[in-house]
Amino acid sequence: MKKTLNVIKIGGNVIDNSEKLHQFLLDFTALPGDKILIHGGGKIATELATSLGVEAKMVEGRRITDIETLRIVTMVYAGLINKNMVAQLQAKGCNAVGLTGADGNIIKAVKRPVKDIDYGYVGDLDEASVSVETLDSLLRAGLVPVICAITHDGQSQLLNTNADTIASAVAVAMAKRYDTALIYCFEKRGVMRDVEDDRSLVAEIRMDEFDALKAEGVVSGGMIPKLHNAFEAIKSGVSAVYIGKADELLQINGSSFGTRLIK
Amino acid sequence: MKKTLNVIKIGGNVIDNSEKLHQFLLDFTALPGDKILIHGGGKIATELATSLGVEAKMVEGRRITDIETLRIVTMVYAGLINKNMVAQLQAKGCNAVGLTGADGNIIKAVKRPVKDIDYGYVGDLDEASVSVETLDSLLRAGLVPVICAITHDGQSQLLNTNADTIASAVAVAMAKRYDTALIYCFEKRGVMRDVEDDRSLVAEIRMDEFDALKAEGVVSGGMIPKLHNAFEAIKSGVSAVYIGKADELLQINGSSFGTRLIK
Repeated sequence: MKKTLNVIKIGGNVIDNSEKLHQFLLDFTALPGDKILIHGGGKIATELATSLGVEAKMVEGRRITDIETLRIVTMVYAGLINKNMVAQLQAKGCNAVGLTGADGNIIKAVKRPVKDIDYGYVGDLDEASVSVETLDSLLRAGLVPVICAITHDGQSQLLNTNADTIASAVAVAMAKRYDTALIYCFEKRGVMRDVEDDRSLVAEIRMDEFDALKAEGVVSGGMIPKLHNAFEAIKSGVSAVYIGKADELLQINGSSFGTRLIK
Repeated sequence: MKKTLNVIKIGGNVIDNSEKLHQFLLDFTALPGDKILIHGGGKIATELATSLGVEAKMVEGRRITDIETLRIVTMVYAGLINKNMVAQLQAKGCNAVGLTGADGNIIKAVKRPVKDIDYGYVGDLDEASVSVETLDSLLRAGLVPVICAITHDGQSQLLNTNADTIASAVAVAMAKRYDTALIYCFEKRGVMRDVEDDRSLVAEIRMDEFDALKAEGVVSGGMIPKLHNAFEAIKSGVSAVYIGKADELLQINGSSFGTRLIK
């Protein structure tokens, strides 16, 4: 039987709130078994850019990572956020090791090809991007990888990379060796039948129910691509994907965390 | 017989010069066997501080690491410099992993006690600071640790820590398991009999010759504490300490790199 592995992604809403972050890191530490944490950015990068007079570059409503922005996100994600998070995890008894995709070549990306828009120094991933061997050897050494949203192209270039995408790619790749769950922590408790009613959480969605829920309008807007990507990960071998609130993470032990997506 | 390990420290003079750094990283990659790279900062942190309007705090001629300065060195050392160096090493075929002392708890420091001067968020090390076990497991996984001048106190606090001190502490600790050489790369070719004469390099200094060389004035000024610390490392089990120029690193294979300090 394969060992279980939890791949957990947190976003800016947790990182930007020091109390929330502290509580989340306590819960993450308490989570038994092998685990990997993936984190995005937050407001700090935007604040640093403002302080340095670097303006956010937008083209057709899309954010562009120019070389100045790449420097900033490298400093903030890989330096400030990642290392403070690792230091906090260590204090809580979790033997964390903070990584970008360049470290140990764990995630090699491809600079997004220029079609209509040049996104700049942004990395795209595929199934072969993740070094399962190296992540596995870190886990076997008792270490807990904490991966930020920076990868590299294998030719010296660091690349800004979506943390949701990294989480999904890591989970899919690790599913070859581990019984892997992918856990997205976000603002809401999960998929809600009624956004106004906190008790209307949809506890479980099977792949064949997805279309019906879309038709009903229970899943709409930005939730559609999120769930689409989640089911793609499941098709590629991930056992289950959870979408829920960071401060309810430990409920995952009773499988009652957020919305559970399964085959 | 113990395996050999080279612990190599580079400073700002290499890091601030992209051509020198490129060549050094090529040479470092070509160096056979187990190795660990330790790096300090450079001008970039000072430049970022200036851009952000953070003034260098000095007390009695000593630099103080206040909380703002700590944020900056964490971003620059652990983020910008370390990750770009790792990405370059990866491109050259060296499976580098960039670390602070917090990562894997590899170097736990103590915040410098306040006596006459409060140095702020500065870490001091002792022999028990270094986790030999974790560094060893990284080396055995085929990884090359690249450690920046940031450590932690085990209670969530990151600490600015002298890179020479880290290099020495790592070498001394690893000497328990490896036949360890400690290599300091700096501006000069090594200890010179005549600073004006590039051919006057002192190839080797034995511990019992140190006092005589001080009396002769061959070793003077800032070189005295440097060599004193080097001989302390040798007393604590390091096989040899080399002091030489970064761009001559590969000569170490023929043992003709810089000045070699031995028992």
